[in-house]
Amino acid sequence: MESMMIYMPILLAILGLIYMVIKQNWVMKQDAGDGKMKEISDHIYQGALAFLNAEYRLLAVFVIIVSVLLAIVSFVVPTTHWLIVVAFIFGAVFSAFAGNIGMKIATKTNVRTTQAARTSLPKALKISFGGGTVMGLGVAGLAVLGLTAFFIVFFQFFMGGVWTNTMDMTIVLETLAGFSLGAESIALFARVGGGIYTKAADVGADLVGKVEAGIPEDDPRNPATIADNVGDNVGDVAGMGADLFGSYVATVLAAMVLGNYVIKDMGGNIGDAFGGIGPILLPMAIAGVGIIISIIGTVLVKISSNNAKEAQVMGALNVGNWTSIILVAAACFVLVNWMLPETMQMQFFGEGLQEISSMRVFYATLVGLVVGAVISSVTEYYTGLGKKPILKIVQQSSTGAGTNIIAGLATGMISTFPSVLLFAGAIWASYAFAGFYGVALAASAMMATTAMQLAIDAFGPISDNAGGIAEMSEQEPIVRERTDILDSVGNTTAATGKGFAIASAALTSLALFAAYVTFTGIDGINIFKAPVLAMLFVGGMVPVVFSALAMNAVGKAAMEMVQEVRRQFKEIPGIMAGTGEPEYDKCVAISTKASLKEMMLPGLLTIGFPLLIAFVPMLFGMKHMAIAEMLGGYMAGVTVSGVLWAIFQNNAGGAWDNAKKSFEAGVEINGEMTYKGSDAHKAAVTGDTVGDPFKDTSGPSMNILIKLTCLIGLVVAPILGGHTAETKTVIENVNIEKIIDDTESQVIQKAIIEKYADATAKATVKTVVIKNGVEKEESKVIKGTYDEVIKKVEGSGKDVIIKVIDVNE
Amino acid sequence: MESMMIYMPILLAILGLIYMVIKQNWVMKQDAGDGKMKEISDHIYQGALAFLNAEYRLLAVFVIIVSVLLAIVSFVVPTTHWLIVVAFIFGAVFSAFAGNIGMKIATKTNVRTTQAARTSLPKALKISFGGGTVMGLGVAGLAVLGLTAFFIVFFQFFMGGVWTNTMDMTIVLETLAGFSLGAESIALFARVGGGIYTKAADVGADLVGKVEAGIPEDDPRNPATIADNVGDNVGDVAGMGADLFGSYVATVLAAMVLGNYVIKDMGGNIGDAFGGIGPILLPMAIAGVGIIISIIGTVLVKISSNNAKEAQVMGALNVGNWTSIILVAAACFVLVNWMLPETMQMQFFGEGLQEISSMRVFYATLVGLVVGAVISSVTEYYTGLGKKPILKIVQQSSTGAGTNIIAGLATGMISTFPSVLLFAGAIWASYAFAGFYGVALAASAMMATTAMQLAIDAFGPISDNAGGIAEMSEQEPIVRERTDILDSVGNTTAATGKGFAIASAALTSLALFAAYVTFTGIDGINIFKAPVLAMLFVGGMVPVVFSALAMNAVGKAAMEMVQEVRRQFKEIPGIMAGTGEPEYDKCVAISTKASLKEMMLPGLLTIGFPLLIAFVPMLFGMKHMAIAEMLGGYMAGVTVSGVLWAIFQNNAGGAWDNAKKSFEAGVEINGEMTYKGSDAHKAAVTGDTVGDPFKDTSGPSMNILIKLTCLIGLVVAPILGGHTAETKTVIENVNIEKIIDDTESQVIQKAIIEKYADATAKATVKTVVIKNGVEKEESKVIKGTYDEVIKKVEGSGKDVIIKVIDVNE
Repeated sequence: MESMMIYMPILLAILGLIYMVIKQNWVMKQDAGDGKMKEISDHIYQGALAFLNAEYRLLAVFVIIVSVLLAIVSFVVPTTHWLIVVAFIFGAVFSAFAGNIGMKIATKTNVRTTQAARTSLPKALKISFGGGTVMGLGVAGLAVLGLTAFFIVFFQFFMGGVWTNTMDMTIVLETLAGFSLGAESIALFARVGGGIYTKAADVGADLVGKVEAGIPEDDPRNPATIADNVGDNVGDVAGMGADLFGSYVATVLAAMVLGNYVIKDMGGNIGDAFGGIGPILLPMAIAGVGIIISIIGTVLVKISSNNAKEAQVMGALNVGNWTSIILVAAACFVLVNWMLPETMQMQFFGEGLQEISSMRVFYATLVGLVVGAVISSVTEYYTGLGKKPILKIVQQSSTGAGTNIIAGLATGMISTFPSVLLFAGAIWASYAFAGFYGVALAASAMMATTAMQLAIDAFGPISDNAGGIAEMSEQEPIVRERTDILDSVGNTTAATGKGFAIASAALTSLALFAAYVTFTGIDGINIFKAPVLAMLFVGGMVPVVFSALAMNAVGKAAMEMVQEVRRQFKEIPGIMAGTGEPEYDKCVAISTKASLKEMMLPGLLTIGFPLLIAFVPMLFGMKHMAIAEMLGGYMAGVTVSGVLWAIFQNNAGGAWDNAKKSFEAGVEINGEMTYKGSDAHKAAVTGDTVGDPFKDTSGPSMNILIKLTCLIGLVVAPILGGHTAETKTVIENVNIEKIIDDTESQVIQKAIIEKYADATAKATVKTVVIKNGVEKEESKVIKGTYDEVIKKVEGSGKDVIIKVIDVNE
Repeated sequence: MESMMIYMPILLAILGLIYMVIKQNWVMKQDAGDGKMKEISDHIYQGALAFLNAEYRLLAVFVIIVSVLLAIVSFVVPTTHWLIVVAFIFGAVFSAFAGNIGMKIATKTNVRTTQAARTSLPKALKISFGGGTVMGLGVAGLAVLGLTAFFIVFFQFFMGGVWTNTMDMTIVLETLAGFSLGAESIALFARVGGGIYTKAADVGADLVGKVEAGIPEDDPRNPATIADNVGDNVGDVAGMGADLFGSYVATVLAAMVLGNYVIKDMGGNIGDAFGGIGPILLPMAIAGVGIIISIIGTVLVKISSNNAKEAQVMGALNVGNWTSIILVAAACFVLVNWMLPETMQMQFFGEGLQEISSMRVFYATLVGLVVGAVISSVTEYYTGLGKKPILKIVQQSSTGAGTNIIAGLATGMISTFPSVLLFAGAIWASYAFAGFYGVALAASAMMATTAMQLAIDAFGPISDNAGGIAEMSEQEPIVRERTDILDSVGNTTAATGKGFAIASAALTSLALFAAYVTFTGIDGINIFKAPVLAMLFVGGMVPVVFSALAMNAVGKAAMEMVQEVRRQFKEIPGIMAGTGEPEYDKCVAISTKASLKEMMLPGLLTIGFPLLIAFVPMLFGMKHMAIAEMLGGYMAGVTVSGVLWAIFQNNAGGAWDNAKKSFEAGVEINGEMTYKGSDAHKAAVTGDTVGDPFKDTSGPSMNILIKLTCLIGLVVAPILGGHTAETKTVIENVNIEKIIDDTESQVIQKAIIEKYADATAKATVKTVVIKNGVEKEESKVIKGTYDEVIKKVEGSGKDVIIKVIDVNE
């Protein structure tokens, strides 16, 4: 059985996808309601499809350009294989396909939820959550399927399907990184483009509709209302799906890379029952089992009473969620003990090899599960209705918009405190348990419930849409009340889901970061070197500027929308009386075009900066190892700053949103009950306006920014590191006067060259070429000046490591 | 002459202080106006003094506590000398004294400026700038005097006034670090406390006075108006003075530390004409000469026409500023060439020793001067009236407070782009020219014009106050017009001054950071080690949380003020008619009390976190070197994140402020001229409310936060590093089976211990104790198990470096 284990994840992924199709058919068979409802739902479906198609057309161009560039790189750089291009394209296509599935089912489920809500709340929950389940399983299933399939193919292609050595496996995994890069690239544009779309449509609809024309939200007379509902799907469903698809793939990949290094640390061959690749298979196995566990979790989500309130619905979701987390913990225990050697040797930086028992790896996975659960509670505390921080913002709204804004900003900022301490503790603990392999497996365990998380997450915007359709199709108030219960729970899960997404992005990035260091073969990243420190600063700045660009993009796109809505109100006769039909599709088209245009600059910033840092210094002849360290500093800067700004923006945005919502039920300010329409409420609306791009555009984009940055680093790593064809040149017995300490031997010693350039040297030069793990040694004697000797071995044009082993007078 | 050079800076500092006294007497001799003006001015003076006295009482307690702690540390830790306590107390006292001088002269100059403005604008500028000059010279003179005097004393005490070796000099400089720590501690509370004070009073005065009672700014009927004017002095004068005092001292100190390491890299003895300490004296010399150059610069600031406008006043300031910058460049050229060896050897991390010509050090100083000048332009671009970013915020105000806030936030965020690239470039360039000594000297050169910068800076709040006094004492409108011209220029210089303060803090911190690494003797700071990376995250979080605490503190303090003003309006009869006298002093007392109370928590966060990181792991027996590296990661996190948040908050705040001010002269929005009182203006006022704590409280506090963090690290360094009494234990000929690679020998190899614990070992143990640069070697043979041998040498309780030189079967 063990030897067939490599096919297990792929089997589980297919099982998950089969369940997805069954569930999808069930949802589609549900009653889609009457004519008006169907019409609105079709509008939303068409709008969403129009956006997706436009986005995919644009992304196809992007994918082609990057593929050509990657192909050139693989042609020029011997250590990069052309198959990475294939992997990249499939990663992009799979991610797009997963987004497509999610978007389609979400836009089909919304109207069915509305229809169900006419009679039964439990049924409405079952349908809306069913739609979410389809989305979640589609993402998780495709992620595991794609990654595992390519791993098997590359394992066959490069190694003939049997273990040879870690060098060969490194090539397999480096090529596999293309799949992850493709997925994450799509995620970038889906998140940023979707985020701009949803907020531009929202702000446009609100500013002209609610504020200027004085009509309620989701009113069918508002031309932007369909775009607004499309936006919920584009941003919250497709964007979040692509984000987690990317995280899922990247996490598992990083854990596989680090698993390979565990094997290396253990001597390069563990010969276990799993074809010698147990530590590499483990993260895939956890991901596969996680799909089945998520299915079990989703089945448990149900309520029975038609009079249930938010608490019961939330309770049902919690039962499913906690069950799946506990089952993952149990699964990790079994898998870790089964698939890993009882004790492993791992290299700990600066502490040498350590014996690590497999139980410690299990503890690391527990750390990941705890982080996933706790971060949700932290997010819930800072953004939840009725919680202290929200009540404080409500109070501060009484003295105007200014104090409301300050309170919201401060809440977002303060919320970084427990979150960062949690992450820092998790890094420390999981590393202490099992090194960076432990960090990566912590992330893998956390991500194992991705399908469940996405189901919980996607059900929110579906319910939101269902409410919108109820409003637009003028249903009985009870229908809207029922969808509002679901929507309200959905708002909470949206906030906690964002917390989960940040946590996953943070841990994933760290795992990628560790994989990067091992790929490049650098000694670590020493920020006491000024260029590295400078790049740490630059990296820290990028998330801030990215956020500003995203926010400005929302502003610009919203302005275009405002003008279009104003034009329609002016030019279409009878639109306000409800007799004239608004041109919904024009608003959809404007939102689509504007968001795609505006996502270019932030995208360019994300992709361009790491490439500039990697390749510009090369033109100036800087040593590859030094560049690799600089790029590492940049990655660390982006990650640290990106995580901070993600938490800050998401939580501030969520807090403002719920502070505003608090006024709907009424709040007590200075002893007086205050409601919608009061001055304090108006101040809270201002806060929400600021918070919208924070929490739906720039904040969630941070996840992708940090992951993509680290992934680009990982793909560039072989070019910088060139470890798959290492050339070591060892000079022995050089005839110079002084012993050179060999701790300085990692790079060519300029000082040595200058000092001893003219000294007569007789040197035995040994060249060790390591190609695919096989060492070949050449030895010859070179006479001449030290300078000449150095020049000669430098001639190869490769990074040369000179080690002065011994020196005789 | 060269041998007397050590006394030169002290002489120049005294010259500067003498000039300060002359200028002070001149200002005090000016006409202080009539009864009403004098009365108001006295109120402000008394209020400011009351705050200072209350603050100093509180700080005295703080200084005593820290002194006791430091004394205990110096008693317990052999490498820390008790004289650090003396240095610490004097640093605190000097800083407080400098703040006192500045505050006194500022509150005396304001009314004289008003009086002069009744007849002549040139005279008003001369007086207000004269007051600024007194402040600037007081700060710079006392900084150089204190630091130089203590250096001479410690140089005599520890080394008898002659060069011995770098180890002894390290002790001198470590003890001198106490002076810097004292200065920076006072700066923290002055900046934070002052920042809270000024904004609490401002918001309190505005909310009740302007908004509720509808009376204009600076109206004498407003009970908070005196507190508001006191706040300008407390925050902008005393806070900024203490900030730059701290930067000045810390920069010069860090440069001296790194100068000492240059001497070490050159073999430990350069025997130059300056008593062998040229590289250490150079930064002090530049600081001393900078004082004289600043005097020259201030003399050049004058206008002749009574009809001058902002442009002429700004021009006059620019002439003085640029002249002093150019003169500093010339002075650096002379001093560097005179005082440094023609070529030096410097250790470059990972690249070994390099030959550095003194000209390259000069280039590094030029980098610093360029950064100081360019950062002001960048700040001016993002916050200046009539500039593109401001116009954009103005436009966005037309669609409400929400869009105004988003535009302001985005402006602050985008402004990090050029600023951080500038800093990163400066770090890179000055390091490439002359290593970290170059970075420190770049900072020193930039800071040389501190007196001039402070004069320009302090003249702003003085003019602001002068305008307030003109308003309150009901002068002719022409008086207010004249002071408004000065005030308007002062607003610009306040923003650029903040840019200068950030740049100085950033470079100072880097220099301190470099000094820290050399003090502890660690190999650098490798963020690939998980605990170090975790601390990088934690460090990055602290400035964010600090900012939130500071903003909340303003909110709380302002609320107390609002209630007091409301009470007075209600309870004092005839107050609105101008017949009842408001109780100004009660408002002053409330602002004072609230600000001092609220500064505690952020202060605790700043001081507590690095101490926790340093000492808690010690309790768990973590190795000192590992802790030192973690603390370094924390420092880097605080610096990177702190610089970003400083730029973001200062520039966003400045931009909102000027966007609001733009409405005073009228702005064109969508083709229509829009003025004060419009809806757009109201939105802009909301932005300004948010921006106030950003730019005057939390933003400027970041400077102190990052410097103080690095300074605490520097003071803790000897405890962690213990380099002044290094113990190296070298084990030779251990009888175990395997050669242990000596690149792993930096810490005790747990793995080795466990693996070979029971192997029979015969070992020659050599212990090398390095105390004050002198090596003593002991050698003895120990027989037993490997484990026993290790335990024996570990017994000393010190960090033991074990180097397995050779192993025989």
